Amino acid sequence: MKNIIIGQSGGPTRVINQSLVGAVKEAKKHSDIGKILGMKFGVKGVLNEDFIDLRKVGEADLDLIAQTPASALGSCRHKPTREDCEKIFEVLKRHEINYWFYIGGNDSAETAHIVNEIAAEKAYDLHVFHIPKTIDNDLCVTDHCPGYGSAARYVAECFLGNDLDNRALKGVKIDIVMGRNAGWLTAASALARFDQDAGPHLIYLPEAPKSLDEIVSEIDEVYGRLSRCVVAISEGVRGADGVLLAESFSQEKDAHGNIQLSGSGALGDMLADYVRTHSKHKGMRVRTDTLGYAQRSFPGVVSEVDAREAFMVGEAAVKFAMEGAKGGSVYIERISNRPYMSEAKITELKNVAKVTKNMPAEFINKNGNGVTDAFIEYAKPIVGDIREVKSLL
Amino acid sequence: MKNIIIGQSGGPTRVINQSLVGAVKEAKKHSDIGKILGMKFGVKGVLNEDFIDLRKVGEADLDLIAQTPASALGSCRHKPTREDCEKIFEVLKRHEINYWFYIGGNDSAETAHIVNEIAAEKAYDLHVFHIPKTIDNDLCVTDHCPGYGSAARYVAECFLGNDLDNRALKGVKIDIVMGRNAGWLTAASALARFDQDAGPHLIYLPEAPKSLDEIVSEIDEVYGRLSRCVVAISEGVRGADGVLLAESFSQEKDAHGNIQLSGSGALGDMLADYVRTHSKHKGMRVRTDTLGYAQRSFPGVVSEVDAREAFMVGEAAVKFAMEGAKGGSVYIERISNRPYMSEAKITELKNVAKVTKNMPAEFINKNGNGVTDAFIEYAKPIVGDIREVKSLL
Repeated sequence: MKNIIIGQSGGPTRVINQSLVGAVKEAKKHSDIGKILGMKFGVKGVLNEDFIDLRKVGEADLDLIAQTPASALGSCRHKPTREDCEKIFEVLKRHEINYWFYIGGNDSAETAHIVNEIAAEKAYDLHVFHIPKTIDNDLCVTDHCPGYGSAARYVAECFLGNDLDNRALKGVKIDIVMGRNAGWLTAASALARFDQDAGPHLIYLPEAPKSLDEIVSEIDEVYGRLSRCVVAISEGVRGADGVLLAESFSQEKDAHGNIQLSGSGALGDMLADYVRTHSKHKGMRVRTDTLGYAQRSFPGVVSEVDAREAFMVGEAAVKFAMEGAKGGSVYIERISNRPYMSEAKITELKNVAKVTKNMPAEFINKNGNGVTDAFIEYAKPIVGDIREVKSLL
Repeated sequence: MKNIIIGQSGGPTRVINQSLVGAVKEAKKHSDIGKILGMKFGVKGVLNEDFIDLRKVGEADLDLIAQTPASALGSCRHKPTREDCEKIFEVLKRHEINYWFYIGGNDSAETAHIVNEIAAEKAYDLHVFHIPKTIDNDLCVTDHCPGYGSAARYVAECFLGNDLDNRALKGVKIDIVMGRNAGWLTAASALARFDQDAGPHLIYLPEAPKSLDEIVSEIDEVYGRLSRCVVAISEGVRGADGVLLAESFSQEKDAHGNIQLSGSGALGDMLADYVRTHSKHKGMRVRTDTLGYAQRSFPGVVSEVDAREAFMVGEAAVKFAMEGAKGGSVYIERISNRPYMSEAKITELKNVAKVTKNMPAEFINKNGNGVTDAFIEYAKPIVGDIREVKSLL
């Protein structure tokens, strides 16, 4: 019998459970699959020998889990050490596991890659599959990442509300959007624009460094024209010197050595103060919001395409495995844009592990403060249509 | 002919345009109504003689406006001075206005009250009506306020996502919720609870002061039991000495003398630091989000009951006026809870202007860190059912 183990890792998303359920439902179709074990809290579940028997979860519950945000099995940000790996392979051996599925972003792909390399060293017959998810949309090879479409939709809805709010009570509104290294999620704010005056009027991305003084000057220009300005800015935005603006405001680092950017309002507050004190429009009303964890787990907003594709990549991972693939990372290939069609394919783990895909130059406007039509064409099908609104202002 | 003027004031809400459209649609039914003018940016529109002819807005656009978040006419937080009032009555006279409708919270009711008093002094025949709206739910007389149900629904959805996220990646999650003086919106976080371990585990309200040390000790107790804790805390929370915790972190005040609490992450960051350094659980992961303007204008979440009632109060204001009421503030009376039924009534402006309705003692638990079943009974019908989810943890 083929025994499989599946885990979720890294930041939760709105649709990561679709991938879990996609994999489990596919696995249940194969008579040569024996155990279907869920790792509790990612790789930590293996280390602690803490599993959920997913065969015992009924179909109705699986369907409900698929629609539930965040990681149903629990998650972790643990990068396995050499010592951990010894323990991991003891546990895998004891449970006779030879298929490992890991749903996550680039750090999780790295974990999968490490486990795969050690299995080869040890000549342990393990097929390791990475199933992509990340709201950051920064995995290589894949056209886009499951989890991005729904997070992008939440961000676009926030900015639609923000723009209407900002029309009603004028001033400058700055929203900080998640995205450590890549601007994909911040860029999605552009999908909120419903008329020519609509915000966000300025979009700042990690890929297009800007000094604080350039930012103030660009806000002043928009404010001079419209008496208001809505700004989308990535938490990973860098100054002209390439240094992260947020860097001096937070010291905490996670286990992968990344600076803790989320869960703090410091960057927004600092920016608002800077704009307030350096603008040529004295007394200008400046407000800021730091979009929080709702970006990755807000239940009320889901992109249908995103949910469907998240299910698809989970299902495909098990299919590829049962068709004889040694292992790899599942990715999405876009077949056509109108009508939108995509399919799941597979690539080697090393092509995805620990690599970040930035926004290409063709998606960023020439002033480095907005996106191009090419980006809108790319993002719209995976985010879905944003509701129609009407303003009298 | 009866000429009417209508304006929106204070913070926007998800459904304030329902009230505008309810009033306009009702007004269009009365053949003795002449002009239907919209004030651009509240009372400032009168001062600047800047109106929108609402008769020229077609039915399809009215329907779309009703579903659009934030104030379609624009808003302001301007409290009219004596001098302003002179100007206001010149403009009203010039346009032969004798009906004034003002959609807003308690500050806006105060503005309506001032205009009404001056009209009496001047023996100017003006019928002044206040149409309630506020996400804070803190108006007197009315059972609840239009705008609250949708904002409460957004907050509950945030906490549902937060709880699932916090199960997956354990730690302490603190969310700051809007509510300057009253805890209604923060209390709504309790509607997110879907099982006995579900958060928010602690809810802190302006009505139940707590010292920082009590807060830390209560978080420690929950964390000791569940290895996690989700906390809902009002921006208007006060220490045991009755002083606003946020007070030292922000100086900006609005025209009504209120401290600027929103649009800053300082309170959340300060609380997270305090909890991190004072907890007996060393190295505990603590994250914080300050729920932003999305609470009042997020397009993706609307309570159906809230939308319907917001329309109803706008419509009712014009009906009362046409039936001969001198003026007043429209309010909602709850007729029954199962099935939920309500109707619009009218009271004197002075009963609503500048008064805050706090949560009654029967809605707050005896430890002052949560809500009672009586509150859930009260809030549930106006917020609506929150989606079903399933956790494996």
